[in-house]
Amino acid sequence: MKHIAILGSTGSIGVSTLEVVSRYPDELRAVALAAGDNVELLAEQVQRHHPERVSLRSAAAAEELKRRLGREAPEIGHGEEGLFAVARHASADVVVSAIVGGAGLAPTWQAIEAGKDIALANKETLVMAGPLVLREVKKRGVRLLPVDSEHVAVMQALSGHQHHEVRRVMLTASGGPFREWDRARIEQATPADALNHPTWKMGRKITVDSATLMNKGLEVIEACRLFDLPPEKIEVIIHTESIIHSMVEYRDGQVVAQLGVPDMKAPIAYALTHPDRLPDVIQRLDLARIGALHFYEVDRAKFPCLDLAYQALRMSELTPAVLNAANEVAVHAFLDQKISFYDISRTIAEVINLEEGGTARDLAGVLETDRRARIKAREVVDRISRRS
Amino acid sequence: MKHIAILGSTGSIGVSTLEVVSRYPDELRAVALAAGDNVELLAEQVQRHHPERVSLRSAAAAEELKRRLGREAPEIGHGEEGLFAVARHASADVVVSAIVGGAGLAPTWQAIEAGKDIALANKETLVMAGPLVLREVKKRGVRLLPVDSEHVAVMQALSGHQHHEVRRVMLTASGGPFREWDRARIEQATPADALNHPTWKMGRKITVDSATLMNKGLEVIEACRLFDLPPEKIEVIIHTESIIHSMVEYRDGQVVAQLGVPDMKAPIAYALTHPDRLPDVIQRLDLARIGALHFYEVDRAKFPCLDLAYQALRMSELTPAVLNAANEVAVHAFLDQKISFYDISRTIAEVINLEEGGTARDLAGVLETDRRARIKAREVVDRISRRS
Repeated sequence: MKHIAILGSTGSIGVSTLEVVSRYPDELRAVALAAGDNVELLAEQVQRHHPERVSLRSAAAAEELKRRLGREAPEIGHGEEGLFAVARHASADVVVSAIVGGAGLAPTWQAIEAGKDIALANKETLVMAGPLVLREVKKRGVRLLPVDSEHVAVMQALSGHQHHEVRRVMLTASGGPFREWDRARIEQATPADALNHPTWKMGRKITVDSATLMNKGLEVIEACRLFDLPPEKIEVIIHTESIIHSMVEYRDGQVVAQLGVPDMKAPIAYALTHPDRLPDVIQRLDLARIGALHFYEVDRAKFPCLDLAYQALRMSELTPAVLNAANEVAVHAFLDQKISFYDISRTIAEVINLEEGGTARDLAGVLETDRRARIKAREVVDRISRRS
Repeated sequence: MKHIAILGSTGSIGVSTLEVVSRYPDELRAVALAAGDNVELLAEQVQRHHPERVSLRSAAAAEELKRRLGREAPEIGHGEEGLFAVARHASADVVVSAIVGGAGLAPTWQAIEAGKDIALANKETLVMAGPLVLREVKKRGVRLLPVDSEHVAVMQALSGHQHHEVRRVMLTASGGPFREWDRARIEQATPADALNHPTWKMGRKITVDSATLMNKGLEVIEACRLFDLPPEKIEVIIHTESIIHSMVEYRDGQVVAQLGVPDMKAPIAYALTHPDRLPDVIQRLDLARIGALHFYEVDRAKFPCLDLAYQALRMSELTPAVLNAANEVAVHAFLDQKISFYDISRTIAEVINLEEGGTARDLAGVLETDRRARIKAREVVDRISRRS
């Protein structure tokens, strides 16, 4: 029986994690949940899973939850303190880090410090502070396992083979909604267009990242950190059906890959129970019914965010944190219809060249870099939006 | 540096093995070669690789080789004695078992008894005498690694994962030249039609086995033996491009696969140097250039040999040896235009139901079953060919 805390329980990954928990009551139990503002869904989750502790973003939301739950209410916290208490909750063995964006870094760090194993869906933890976080993971003797289909695929394709013989990792990308659009049409894309993802159902911010391919860029950075590989050993290939989740090519030319129906429950369950696998987590793969798997080169001119991610990786240890901050600000401005689709990459390109980067000494340094980059990104976004 | 003996050095696998040896002179050396009747090619191989010992099928061929090579000649043997001497050659570390058909079993057994590691391209060794051979492998403390793309793929997809969590192995099959023919047209197929294989270049007997799918049937039997799995856990799926070489599905629904360009040098090199990989053995996989991978169910009514293999596996430990003997006889009769394409499966079906099967006590027992099955198969073939 594993006891699980979830940071971001009402988000897409959080909800899927609780589905997995519900299906395997003899193996998994949710003991602590942190959410943002969705009181209604968190109340349902509490009634179903009976966690020992929960948290919401605001005091008002926490109060409302207490009112709703009455005598059934567990320990209810709010704000950073409440969130950190969930991350460090005494009876949790594994913390699922599933808050979207840079906000996920600090509570994940808290969980590592508290000696929890980490199931990491929050990409930013490794993008912003990879080397720092991995040192802390080692120091605390905890396990950090990725929760996304690509990195779980790479992990499975590396398992049992020799790391020094890896020639390249091929991360697959669905290509997003604009794969077949030309640049002129993408230039006019609206938030609604970008949110119309062909295969994966995810949150809004990540779905826009899928449309710009920044999601893949962040995964490239994460893969470098997680698997200790240089950027030139990580490639991206478009695979429209999202069946091959990623591949590892070895020095002899042979490739090991992981496949499956696209369903986040697979990487979630795998991260929670590794090295064991729960039975029948996802539907069987029926390749004959699928018929064909398609592959394309990425058109890098159409999706400049991908090259920006590689560029950031090469600039300095902290530049990926700058890239990430600028991207978050720009994506929200795009969703608010303040800037156009390609203004996202324009903003990022400008900000990573403005910010110095450098090496991360501690978490505070990373968060300070993140804060400064966001300010610069907002300035760039404001300037662009005034112009248009 | 690994010293290699090759049983069947002038066949397709033998030639590819020597290509690998030539390309990695610091890693591999061919010290002993056994061929059939191809004196000319063996002479070239001797001049290039300078083995310490060679052997040919007949005394006449051995004499001719001696004349050709003159003072350069190594130790030259012939017949079973010469073949066994190559299999047991003192300085060999690994024996590549690449003689086609049931004739490969006895020399492979010799090599195992002599404490050699085995790189096994000869399918019949495990099909005819799997449990017996694997007990001997264990007893002698040698390694037996498969040399064919499917089993090397399965091996790589099992490596690093838990065997008791395997739900099924999916062996891929190109489908052979008759994948798109209907049954009536296949009924009229000539040897030339059957020898026209779409992706793999192999010997004549194996190419016909590819057309009937008996090749895949034999691989199913081999996979059961090698990976200690029951027949119901081995499936076959048609994959026309032969890029995914096979897959393993685990209990959670995730699938691990091995991919690569179709080139026998990959599994050969892998079996010779496992767990290490030689650099750049095969061309890089360029999935974007390939574009699409296609998958189909096997039409079992069109290819009855596949079901016959499963049936033989379930009948008795020795029935696969009967199946194999009947198939060899029938394929040669088909190549000699004595019987039609579907007479191959008719012959096999009749012979496996005539022969008793049972358990293999020792190698002699297996060879006796093989001999009896061949006699019966010849009787069936003669009867069919007289009728037509």
